[in-house]
Amino acid sequence: MRTLKWNYDKNLLEMIDQRLLPGEFKIIEFDTYQKVAQAITDMVVRGAPAIGGAAGFGLAAAAFQSAASTPEELHRDLKVAAKVLGQARPTAVNLAWALDRVLNEVFPPLLIGEGPGVRSDAEVRSNAEVMSLCQAILTEAQRIADEDVEINKRMARHGAELIEDGDTIIHHCNTGALATVDWGTALGVIRTAHEQGKNIHVLVDETRPRLQGARLTAWELEQYGIPYDIISDNAAGYFLRTGQVQKVVFGADRVAANGDVANKIGTYMLALAARDNSVPAYSVVPTSTIDLTLPTGEEIPIEEREEAEVLALTLKGLQVSPANASARNPAFDVTPHRLVTGIVTENGVVYPPFDKNLPKAVKSET
Amino acid sequence: MRTLKWNYDKNLLEMIDQRLLPGEFKIIEFDTYQKVAQAITDMVVRGAPAIGGAAGFGLAAAAFQSAASTPEELHRDLKVAAKVLGQARPTAVNLAWALDRVLNEVFPPLLIGEGPGVRSDAEVRSNAEVMSLCQAILTEAQRIADEDVEINKRMARHGAELIEDGDTIIHHCNTGALATVDWGTALGVIRTAHEQGKNIHVLVDETRPRLQGARLTAWELEQYGIPYDIISDNAAGYFLRTGQVQKVVFGADRVAANGDVANKIGTYMLALAARDNSVPAYSVVPTSTIDLTLPTGEEIPIEEREEAEVLALTLKGLQVSPANASARNPAFDVTPHRLVTGIVTENGVVYPPFDKNLPKAVKSET
Repeated sequence: MRTLKWNYDKNLLEMIDQRLLPGEFKIIEFDTYQKVAQAITDMVVRGAPAIGGAAGFGLAAAAFQSAASTPEELHRDLKVAAKVLGQARPTAVNLAWALDRVLNEVFPPLLIGEGPGVRSDAEVRSNAEVMSLCQAILTEAQRIADEDVEINKRMARHGAELIEDGDTIIHHCNTGALATVDWGTALGVIRTAHEQGKNIHVLVDETRPRLQGARLTAWELEQYGIPYDIISDNAAGYFLRTGQVQKVVFGADRVAANGDVANKIGTYMLALAARDNSVPAYSVVPTSTIDLTLPTGEEIPIEEREEAEVLALTLKGLQVSPANASARNPAFDVTPHRLVTGIVTENGVVYPPFDKNLPKAVKSET
Repeated sequence: MRTLKWNYDKNLLEMIDQRLLPGEFKIIEFDTYQKVAQAITDMVVRGAPAIGGAAGFGLAAAAFQSAASTPEELHRDLKVAAKVLGQARPTAVNLAWALDRVLNEVFPPLLIGEGPGVRSDAEVRSNAEVMSLCQAILTEAQRIADEDVEINKRMARHGAELIEDGDTIIHHCNTGALATVDWGTALGVIRTAHEQGKNIHVLVDETRPRLQGARLTAWELEQYGIPYDIISDNAAGYFLRTGQVQKVVFGADRVAANGDVANKIGTYMLALAARDNSVPAYSVVPTSTIDLTLPTGEEIPIEEREEAEVLALTLKGLQVSPANASARNPAFDVTPHRLVTGIVTENGVVYPPFDKNLPKAVKSET
């Protein structure tokens, strides 16, 4: 089962609801782009590549929702939908990347006329054109989803070469099949290394506040039969400093041109502890996560989410924090490139200097 | 209300049950040293100075439990009790410090005879002696408790000089009145700075897995009227890197002779992030927490607690992690002295080189 999948019978998007896994496994259907956008905001679906996939299908939903009778009207409707979808979450660049890709593929910039024009003689042709454009949108969204799985497996093969038999690996957040359309980025590397017969052990950062590690990564590792222990995020330093860890891996929500990595909150402190103990730390990302338009991580927008995510914990039925407590909840941080050993992409492992080598990886084809 | 208090009417120890605060405020009575030891292990009482205070009163309970009719018998019983109490938790040195102090004060090493001796002619005198020794044990335990409050206030005054008006301060774990007999160490510094009229804001590390920050520190800050926000431990790096923090403060469970600081898990990663952003990080400890017998932090025993503490979280009534999940749970880590800006004691702020300056602080009297 893919994390997200277009249902061609019902013409709608199906996604696993990731909010209550592993306690409950539920598929939700989304027949409007507004619902898809809300699902991205609410983290029904999360993980940069999965968000990109969902956004593509969100545009397909918007196309089938549209009452447009001309390509121009359809394009206008889709631009409205793309704006709503694009604002669902700010940090992961895959969202904008997927929206741009679908729109540019189906409406190449040079072919879009400016004014509406008088097309009364072409009404019938337009209707057929609109139908065909809707199908083209869906086709492109499906292509993004299918490519994601293929790209993940290529990343995983490159990354698995870095993993040695006997390694203990710290993994942050969830970057597995659930964070992508299927297979995963950093967790995909771990999965492939395991399938290659390497004997590995994973220390799973629980990843407060949403606990994607304790919930999703632990659940996935159980499915794959990979041994693991969950740890508090703040315990990673202990295991690194006592020599019990050989690799640190994580994904990314956006990588700037200089190699700065925006990723789930806590990645920066983890990378610091890895560096302080000379343990290599790798970010595993599809090139669609690399944003060469931003010179450094300073320009990456960091989402701050509602404080309830921090405060909602209960212990033996009682709320953990005082009733009137307040919280701050940045969802991501930026790890400076000096702390990143390498960036694993579908086109190979990129090493410093990232500002020189990332553009090559983005452009290269294999 | 003190965190722990001897009830002279009932001749037993009363302690606030810290496990479910702030949801529930409950005082528990302890009339045997075995119950006190269990309470330390179970973290009814926690925080290095509070554990020291509880251990002292634990010996008083043991004295009143004893059926000894001679000082030698009493000493033998107390040594058994001290062994049980001393093993309740391994990392905080205050436990051993308090036990040694009480026993050495009441049974000065040179005055303890080796053999039991034939004292038939002194039975009555012995009974009176035993009663008086029991009272002396309690007196010394009470002295430790009273001194703790006084020492904390002296530490707080020294530490508060480091805090500037307008500071935002990250605080780890709970080091307040609840972690001591009263007032607190690092949180005592914050409290005193606030009482001096300084406008400060506290970012409270929630401190997984036991959440002493979200539960206890937040609760204390509300009592004192000090503004705060709870953050995930892994978010500290974000706030430090974005220039929103001016000071980092924490306590310690044991400080080695070279200034290495064993403290609640997560302190090392926090101190790394502080250093990476040139923000000063202070450990606030009574000199009873400084263990000059250990050359470095490598020799400090680190307690690993049961995995249930990591796995017990529930979210909307569902267990967060998979049913069969396993976890690792080191309760402390060691922050190397190179990351510690200064160590605040009741005798002043100690700066590097710690190996030279800590012994002076331990010996000095003010």
